[in-house]
Amino acid sequence: MAMDVLLIGIAGGSGSGKSTLTERIMERFSDDVTVILHDDYYKSFDEIEFEERVKINFDEPSSYDTAMMVEDLRALKAGRSVQIPVYDYSTYLRTSKVRAIIPTKVVLVEGILVLSEKDLSDLFDIKVFVDTDPDIRIIRRIRRDMKNRGRTFESVVDQYMKTVKPMHERYVEPSKKNADIIVLGGGENPAALDLLYHKINSHIKGI
Amino acid sequence: MAMDVLLIGIAGGSGSGKSTLTERIMERFSDDVTVILHDDYYKSFDEIEFEERVKINFDEPSSYDTAMMVEDLRALKAGRSVQIPVYDYSTYLRTSKVRAIIPTKVVLVEGILVLSEKDLSDLFDIKVFVDTDPDIRIIRRIRRDMKNRGRTFESVVDQYMKTVKPMHERYVEPSKKNADIIVLGGGENPAALDLLYHKINSHIKGI
Repeated sequence: MAMDVLLIGIAGGSGSGKSTLTERIMERFSDDVTVILHDDYYKSFDEIEFEERVKINFDEPSSYDTAMMVEDLRALKAGRSVQIPVYDYSTYLRTSKVRAIIPTKVVLVEGILVLSEKDLSDLFDIKVFVDTDPDIRIIRRIRRDMKNRGRTFESVVDQYMKTVKPMHERYVEPSKKNADIIVLGGGENPAALDLLYHKINSHIKGI
Repeated sequence: MAMDVLLIGIAGGSGSGKSTLTERIMERFSDDVTVILHDDYYKSFDEIEFEERVKINFDEPSSYDTAMMVEDLRALKAGRSVQIPVYDYSTYLRTSKVRAIIPTKVVLVEGILVLSEKDLSDLFDIKVFVDTDPDIRIIRRIRRDMKNRGRTFESVVDQYMKTVKPMHERYVEPSKKNADIIVLGGGENPAALDLLYHKINSHIKGI
């Protein structure tokens, strides 16, 4: 009989604290939990020149191969291993590498749009939306992109205004209504983390 | 040593589904869980005539004896039994009766304003806000008040517009930001209930 895989979707805007929430869970349950990012399934756009690829709106649902991700998650749910794509963020291309994923008792699926895509959202046993004020989210994004990605303040703001904010308002924010629970304060919310810990722990131990 | 009492605050607007959520938890854990309503602590207003009492804005924080409730909850937390007031909703008066409450492992504290009053909110180990669209909430309130309280549609709407809605916007809605988790769909949200069940179960069993 296939393992009972608990699929948890973790959505929320850029800078909301989704990744921190995911990391906190991983710190506690590393072996029994796998994290898969929606971004792992960015389409490759091989046919487009680099100069054009960088202009692609990566916050738009059509930039993702969500159907492929849904197929992979269904396979994991059914107890089969899968090989998921490895994306290269510097070239905006899918690499020739794959990452082998064996089914674990818990799979966290993280991304800004994981609750806005119905086929994907319907797979989740628990739908979490990490909700953080837009001012806090942009501060985090500016800090992260300036520090880790060598971007200027103005280039971060430019991308934010052109694609991140409009896509957030069009797709991410409305998907909050699909959540089972909304977590305020992202990864720094001990009570919400504690609720998820107990559920995950019970699931892993079969309590 | 005093029992470790888990205090859970459950807030949300009128008709949001707070009571259903509370009932679902009680159905599962009756003996180890106590429910206390903020409404149990309505002030008595004995000095005011009935005709005037009915006009009181019962959604206003000053209508509650929150300080008394905080004191009682602190006593329960410390392992002491308390005698809480019994309110008569037909006369809008506190009765001469009391309800004896012995400390249980879990105490649910329900009310529209339990997260808007800081002294109260600070006591909770888990702060839950039940969030439901205003149109759904008013439909439920109209249905309930017409069916169970013999009110007319217009009288329910009149009270809603005069006190319930303005107080909601002034106090209840802003208190959502104090929540640890926001539960959508009220008591009919199996995934959110399941998270609370596992946490409560672990707490009761000392896992």
